[in-house]
Amino acid sequence: MTDTPYDVLAIGNAIVDVISSASDAFITDQKLVKGGMDLIDAERAVGLYEAMGPGKQVSGGAAANTLSGLAMLGAKCSFIGQVADDELGKFYAHDLRAAGVDFAVPPGAEDAPTGRCLILVTPDGERTMNTFLGASHYLPASAISDDAVSNARILFLEGYMWDPPEPRAAMRQAIEIARKARTEIAFGTCADFCVRTHREDFRKLIDDNMIDILFANEEEAGILEDSDPEAAIETLARDVPLLVITRGPRGAIAIQDGKRYEVAALPTSVVDTTGAGDLFAAGFLAGRVKGESIDRCLQMGAIVAAEIVSHFGARPEKNLQRLMDE
Amino acid sequence: MTDTPYDVLAIGNAIVDVISSASDAFITDQKLVKGGMDLIDAERAVGLYEAMGPGKQVSGGAAANTLSGLAMLGAKCSFIGQVADDELGKFYAHDLRAAGVDFAVPPGAEDAPTGRCLILVTPDGERTMNTFLGASHYLPASAISDDAVSNARILFLEGYMWDPPEPRAAMRQAIEIARKARTEIAFGTCADFCVRTHREDFRKLIDDNMIDILFANEEEAGILEDSDPEAAIETLARDVPLLVITRGPRGAIAIQDGKRYEVAALPTSVVDTTGAGDLFAAGFLAGRVKGESIDRCLQMGAIVAAEIVSHFGARPEKNLQRLMDE
Repeated sequence: MTDTPYDVLAIGNAIVDVISSASDAFITDQKLVKGGMDLIDAERAVGLYEAMGPGKQVSGGAAANTLSGLAMLGAKCSFIGQVADDELGKFYAHDLRAAGVDFAVPPGAEDAPTGRCLILVTPDGERTMNTFLGASHYLPASAISDDAVSNARILFLEGYMWDPPEPRAAMRQAIEIARKARTEIAFGTCADFCVRTHREDFRKLIDDNMIDILFANEEEAGILEDSDPEAAIETLARDVPLLVITRGPRGAIAIQDGKRYEVAALPTSVVDTTGAGDLFAAGFLAGRVKGESIDRCLQMGAIVAAEIVSHFGARPEKNLQRLMDE
Repeated sequence: MTDTPYDVLAIGNAIVDVISSASDAFITDQKLVKGGMDLIDAERAVGLYEAMGPGKQVSGGAAANTLSGLAMLGAKCSFIGQVADDELGKFYAHDLRAAGVDFAVPPGAEDAPTGRCLILVTPDGERTMNTFLGASHYLPASAISDDAVSNARILFLEGYMWDPPEPRAAMRQAIEIARKARTEIAFGTCADFCVRTHREDFRKLIDDNMIDILFANEEEAGILEDSDPEAAIETLARDVPLLVITRGPRGAIAIQDGKRYEVAALPTSVVDTTGAGDLFAAGFLAGRVKGESIDRCLQMGAIVAAEIVSHFGARPEKNLQRLMDE
């Protein structure tokens, strides 16, 4: 642990992605919702893994993906999440630290292995995710350092972690600390099912002014407001200081103080959309901690998102700093 | 196990590749030979892993890479290699079977973990490999099934496996069985250091007519004959029935009955050259088991090699059969 303040401190899932190409027929046969994210238990994880093709293991987790990008872009970052004391957990911790992200949470003491996400990528580049949370499910509130949250510039919260009760309690505690310390709170809604399940909680966080920057995609915004996406965006833009909405191949928009900013997606050959939203957030927040304009933040998000969809896995392969300078 | 004859049965390393981008400075700092392959012990594996960047885990092993490509192209294949009873070993076995390769060798009983290869990929796409053999080192001769070798069309041997004594004994046994049964014997020299260390053995195999198809690159051919590559190729072409020489960006040649065939490398954006030779062999042998002409075999090798260098990892990502039909 270091006492130097972090640009971004994030709480999220510590899971390794196991990525495999799959046909659309496989998605149908396995009764999966294409493009979605499902929580699965250990037994289903074994069965689905057996059925799927050869895989690549790459560290993942929405907020941790964001931090990996941020750290590559020079931001000082720390991750709060829980792995187990196993091979996958060591792989995970190595990758975060090697990317330049501080990670000091000890492995969980529970009898749960490191979490994993089985990702099927169809020929169109769409990813269908099946997450076995494992040790991630039990992240205790004791993992939250009062000082680290208070001194951070931005606290980034992964919506996925609202689902299991212990991490949710940890996040609530972090929000309280951040609010008192005037640490900016960024929140990613992450997935349809998160918003559907926790809509009231999420809406209450917004109403209580606990979210300063909200990251969501159009569908999630619509579900949150129970309206069509465009109307939802208008309402949300009035209720959060800074709203960032990703729109897949149509780029992204940001709204601050009633002013709307837009960026187009960069032209790229899409191989795997896993992590597109996470890395868009990385680029955007990297700009923000550097004091860039909203337009430049959006542009940085688009550059990083284009890199991540061009290959399998949600951790950057190219030197992001160099991409920014091009 | 199945009693149906295999098109290709291979003996090789069962190791998982851990692939990471690295700068040329990192290669120098770590005193590595760029483009080479080094055997490392457990301690060095830990130290180098700690120093290297975030990784991707993809199943590897030269002969197993070849079989994965062959199976995707419709050949019936079986792999003889040894993992440990650990997470990495399960990952490895899954990937081979999911690729359609039979793999029935039980995990090793020794106290050695599944082998891994730490691969540093520099910005020019060149790979520098550092292999900790682990359980692979102890593949016992008992893993060789007399029937499977006798009935196979081609026995494919990975030169890397000539280094540790137990797998070498297993390979010698397989060669004897194959010779008696008129199973064609293909041999890949794999790396400079293999040829340098085992030159006499390799040369004796050739002199004893134990190799029907020899796969090597130009440098390995030169080391084997202790001459310049072009002269070495001429000599070797007289001593083995079918010689296949890969030449990196300059494509490949094959010589059979004194006749020389050539193929150019396909134009492609090189990301990671790991497995280029292995997958060239896959395409070539896939053509051979289908009874294609040498020219077509070379062309198939070039197509598959171009796919593998276009992304990280030595296992194909695209549908190879579709690439052949294009």
